[in-house]
Parts: sequence; C-alpha cells; structure tokens
Amino acid sequence: MTNSSDDVTRHAFSKRLPDGDSRERMVCDSCGWIDYVNPKVVVGAVCTFGAKILLCRRAINPRKGFWTLPAGYLEEHETTEDGARREAREEALAEITLDRLLAVYNVPRLSQVQLIYRATLAEPVFGVGEESLEVGLFDWDEIPWDEIAFPTVLWALQNHRSVMGQTDFAPFTNPAGEVGDMLRGMAFKED
Amino acid sequence: MTNSSDDVTRHAFSKRLPDGDSRERMVCDSCGWIDYVNPKVVVGAVCTFGAKILLCRRAINPRKGFWTLPAGYLEEHETTEDGARREAREEALAEITLDRLLAVYNVPRLSQVQLIYRATLAEPVFGVGEESLEVGLFDWDEIPWDEIAFPTVLWALQNHRSVMGQTDFAPFTNPAGEVGDMLRGMAFKED
Repeated sequence: MTNSSDDVTRHAFSKRLPDGDSRERMVCDSCGWIDYVNPKVVVGAVCTFGAKILLCRRAINPRKGFWTLPAGYLEEHETTEDGARREAREEALAEITLDRLLAVYNVPRLSQVQLIYRATLAEPVFGVGEESLEVGLFDWDEIPWDEIAFPTVLWALQNHRSVMGQTDFAPFTNPAGEVGDMLRGMAFKED
Repeated sequence: MTNSSDDVTRHAFSKRLPDGDSRERMVCDSCGWIDYVNPKVVVGAVCTFGAKILLCRRAINPRKGFWTLPAGYLEEHETTEDGARREAREEALAEITLDRLLAVYNVPRLSQVQLIYRATLAEPVFGVGEESLEVGLFDWDEIPWDEIAFPTVLWALQNHRSVMGQTDFAPFTNPAGEVGDMLRGMAFKED
C-alpha cells in the first residue's frame, strides 16, 4: 500500500497549506497535486468453529511467519462487513458469517482504524490463501501465543474470550494507555 | 478533500494493475505514482445536554444550510475518539465527553465508514464553528426533521433515542437494505 521511494522522489512534494484547508498537506511542487492521506481502515474477524479459533500465519511482511487473524485493508466502495468477509476468503479460503462488531482499535502511529468482528464458520472448511503460509483452527491453549503478529490480534483474542456467549456489549477499544505499538515489551518493527 | 479537476488532468492517470497488487489502481502515466485511494473514516457524535441534542447547520457543501451532527473526516495519526472530540470542538466549539460507540455506518458509494459516538456536554456551552452557520441544542420535537443533511444523521438520531439509558448494546449499522444514498425518497446530491 505504499509507493516506492523512487516515485516519491520524482514527485518532489513539499508540506504546504492548501487554500481553505486547516492542515498542511504534501503538495507536488511541479503540478500542485494535493496528496490527501486518509487513515487506513483494517477489517477482520475473530472467527470460531465451536471453541476453535481461525488463525493465519503471515506469508508477507510486516511480521512474516507470525500468526494473525484474517484481516486487511478495506477497499474502495466496500462495506466494512463485506471487507471482513473478503479478507477471510482471501487469506483463509473461508466463508465466514459475521455476528457483530467485537472491537474498534486505533493504531495512530500507523493511522490505522481496525474494525474487528466476531464471526463463525459453519463447517471447518478453510485453506491457505496467497498471503498465508499456514491456516489453522486452534483451541485456546494451542494458540501460538509467542508468535502472534500484532498487539491488536492479542487484544482481539482476549476480548473475544471475555464476552463468550454475550451478545449485548459495547465494542472493545485499545486497552488503557496502549497505542498498538508494543507487545509484551517487545518493540515492533513495521516493514 | 478533493483535488480540482485541473490537477487531475495535468496528472493524466490511467487504470493499471501495479506489480503484486490484486486490484487496478490509478497510476500516473508520466511518473508511475500509484494513487492508492483509501476509504474515508468519518467520526462524529450524537451529543446531548439533558434531553437536548447538539446539531450544527452546515456552512459548506455538500448540503449547505442543512442540519447535521458534529462530524467530519478523521485525520492522519488521530484516534477515532480524538477525532470525534475535535470535530465537536471545530464545528460547535463544544468540549464533549464520549460515552461509547453508537454506530458504524457504511456509505460504500462514497467509500465512507462513519463511526458515530454517544456523547454528553457537561454544560450547555457551545458556539458557531467555521464550518457551521448555526449551532443549537434541540429537544426531540424541535429537531428540524425536514432539514437533516444526510441519511446517516437521521439514523444516528433514531438509533440514539432507541437505546436511551442503555449501556450494553451492539453498535448500530445501516438499516437493512440502506446504503446511505437516499433519505425519505429524496435523491442526494453530493457536491
């Protein structure tokens, strides 16, 4: 989702305040194009079959080789619900049924808003999508806790467990004081 | 939030499939810049003082002169909660306290995801921000129902009323079959 540094260099943007705007934006020096950058919406799901949870081992960076929920960037003209279903289809070859919104997490450093749904699999039918190395259904005690890709994945798993069987609850947000950058004291490298 | 058509013309983009991507993107013919367009996150609040609801009459298009909630585009590196508070500050000169997430609405035609919070004003202190013509606190029966700016504003007001006094509920979504384009049969013009 990023342009190469070559492209950026050839464009030669500077930070300027467009007419009528209240914030500085990157503006192309040669043609005046304003690069409005919007926060990114990540959609995903904690998806269960019985007591087991669907996880994918990432085939791509950041955090290649680590385990995550089926989740990814919302596309243009797509609803958040359709996006969450598409990501499960792409990464885990799974057709999931959304239940309700579990959480909205913010990772402001990356300008990410993550909408994580609670979902189910009707049958234990899944596969290994292009962006995954491995996909599996895990009992709680089998989850590879030391190889979880992102803090938000850990939060979603824990939050999901805390409301098992409940339907009426406010969606979870970041744990107090957490901004999504660190996991158990481990510094995160974003590629 | 849009570039003028002049800028777009000078750039001369065509739809192409970047290497390793699964969707066509607009790519600049002369320099190869890939214009990744992300969906836009709108954050706002149904904010009350007692039984009264804070509304703003829009000073800008689209829907100039119509009434809306304090709401607007999330900025880079901003959390959704901070964004909702900032919009109330900018549009209604109001310091609001967020309670919980009321709704997540999708307007796929505009690639918009709207996160609407439930919020309160500690004191009836507010003013007319730059993007507003008028700001007021309205009893339910005083709300200018025929001059509401957007379908999502109407939904948020109705959804807010339906859970008055409740804290545990799933956030609302679009009414069944609604995509945010029409209000009571009235076609929407987006400027």
